[in-house]
Amino acid sequence: MINKLTIIGLGLMGGSLAKALKAQGAVVEVVGTGRRTESLDRGLQLGVIDSYTLDMAEAVAGADVVVIATPTLIAEKVMAELAPLMTPNMVVTDVASVKGNIQRAAEQIFGQVPPNFVLGHPIAGSEQSGVEASAVDLFLDHRVILTPLANTSDSALSLIKAMWEACGAEVVCMDVAEHDAVLAATSHLPHVLAYTLVDALAQNGAAADIFKFAAGGFRDFTRIASSDPTMWHDIALANRDAILQGIDAFSSHLDLVRKAIADGDGDTIFASFDRAKHARDEHFLGQYLTREKKPPSS
Amino acid sequence: MINKLTIIGLGLMGGSLAKALKAQGAVVEVVGTGRRTESLDRGLQLGVIDSYTLDMAEAVAGADVVVIATPTLIAEKVMAELAPLMTPNMVVTDVASVKGNIQRAAEQIFGQVPPNFVLGHPIAGSEQSGVEASAVDLFLDHRVILTPLANTSDSALSLIKAMWEACGAEVVCMDVAEHDAVLAATSHLPHVLAYTLVDALAQNGAAADIFKFAAGGFRDFTRIASSDPTMWHDIALANRDAILQGIDAFSSHLDLVRKAIADGDGDTIFASFDRAKHARDEHFLGQYLTREKKPPSS
Repeated sequence: MINKLTIIGLGLMGGSLAKALKAQGAVVEVVGTGRRTESLDRGLQLGVIDSYTLDMAEAVAGADVVVIATPTLIAEKVMAELAPLMTPNMVVTDVASVKGNIQRAAEQIFGQVPPNFVLGHPIAGSEQSGVEASAVDLFLDHRVILTPLANTSDSALSLIKAMWEACGAEVVCMDVAEHDAVLAATSHLPHVLAYTLVDALAQNGAAADIFKFAAGGFRDFTRIASSDPTMWHDIALANRDAILQGIDAFSSHLDLVRKAIADGDGDTIFASFDRAKHARDEHFLGQYLTREKKPPSS
Repeated sequence: MINKLTIIGLGLMGGSLAKALKAQGAVVEVVGTGRRTESLDRGLQLGVIDSYTLDMAEAVAGADVVVIATPTLIAEKVMAELAPLMTPNMVVTDVASVKGNIQRAAEQIFGQVPPNFVLGHPIAGSEQSGVEASAVDLFLDHRVILTPLANTSDSALSLIKAMWEACGAEVVCMDVAEHDAVLAATSHLPHVLAYTLVDALAQNGAAADIFKFAAGGFRDFTRIASSDPTMWHDIALANRDAILQGIDAFSSHLDLVRKAIADGDGDTIFASFDRAKHARDEHFLGQYLTREKKPPSS
């Protein structure tokens, strides 16, 4: 049970966390804070938070848990403001999609990441954003990755783990660098590719026709390109090295496929598409199929 | 009303067409044919077709409409077999995703594309395939593109248009080259990118972890990588030039985004992501939003 929970930066993530904890009776009081009143006003109207103040010192005073739920790059600045207000009895966590830059920023501010600061990232989201999109079940049956460090306090880690489990999430711990590499591959790189494809097509003279004849496959493929550009701009900068590695690995593969298409090399094309289909079906559909070694139809 | 409809190559497309026409009472008899009995047997059991024969001459004798519904590259071979069996009273159409190669193949076989051969492409599909996946509503509220040529018979075009409209589809006519360029951009290129990303990740040493932590965005983004690799191998070869142009345009854009990330050029990253979000939201959500010119949060 959390007596006082403070959310810095009330949006989809913070709002959904507050809703879920309240629904479970796992929190007594939720206080919001931030730089502007709009989302805090909406959160208050929607009953997501019990009160708010723009004064961070007031907001976090006496809090058991403080959640930094701002966009990634703002989280770095929030930490600097929060540093002098932290007390040993307060546990701080965040929800940013990249952990390496948060760790580095905390080390610059505090010397080392404080034992009562637990870096975290719920693997949940939506192409929608804002507190009005928050949902009580956003984290239900989703994974939350925590990236504790050698000096992280066991009790702080336990408290944050219990908080996410109260929302119905499965909590997994991993190394900061591993987290950032895995997320670059499965989330950050796909967002970059989807944004890039849509932007490239939108600049084509025939863009109107192109979008008009797009079917369900294109709609699903590009859904993540409707995500908040500010948030993803932040992530692209915050996880730069891992994303660049991901782009380079992808581009190398695309060069091979391009060459195969240009050369009319059907065997290479089929082998790549077939490996991809089987990998995806195995991982997502649980279909550990025997791969058919049938030749392409040509 | 079609008296006898013959489907060459019974799978998702041909099966769904037969189901829809039967449900509308728009066909009396559906005959299947192909090279193997498996899918024809299943189609017969499911009531999708009324009879089948492996003898193409028998299958098409007296048919009002013959639909070539095989994979793209097989369609080229089927035309050669069908050529001596065509009669002036028979209208032939196809459902292949690329039209330029079908046109070229028909010109080689017939000298010119016969007036009673209407090239067509229903913009509908699924990552599932096979006659057992066929659905009565696969074409409902979907577009079907027909690419008639200068010598295409008006009555043949009208019959094929009416056939698709009976399935609830909206029929649009366009030029062969325009069709292939639009489909390369909205369908073929996205499939190549999705296959390439999944294949690249599957070959990563940490593939199991990568897929394990993939969330809904990745699942949607890669859904089309579960499509039939034989079909997409055919399309990649059949629409080679337009797909290569699409890959090159995409790669140039990705190079720019990569450079912006490497340089920490937040303005360029934000501008690209923001243009993409607005283009997609405008086209798919009908949200003709005023673009916010807000700077990124950094």
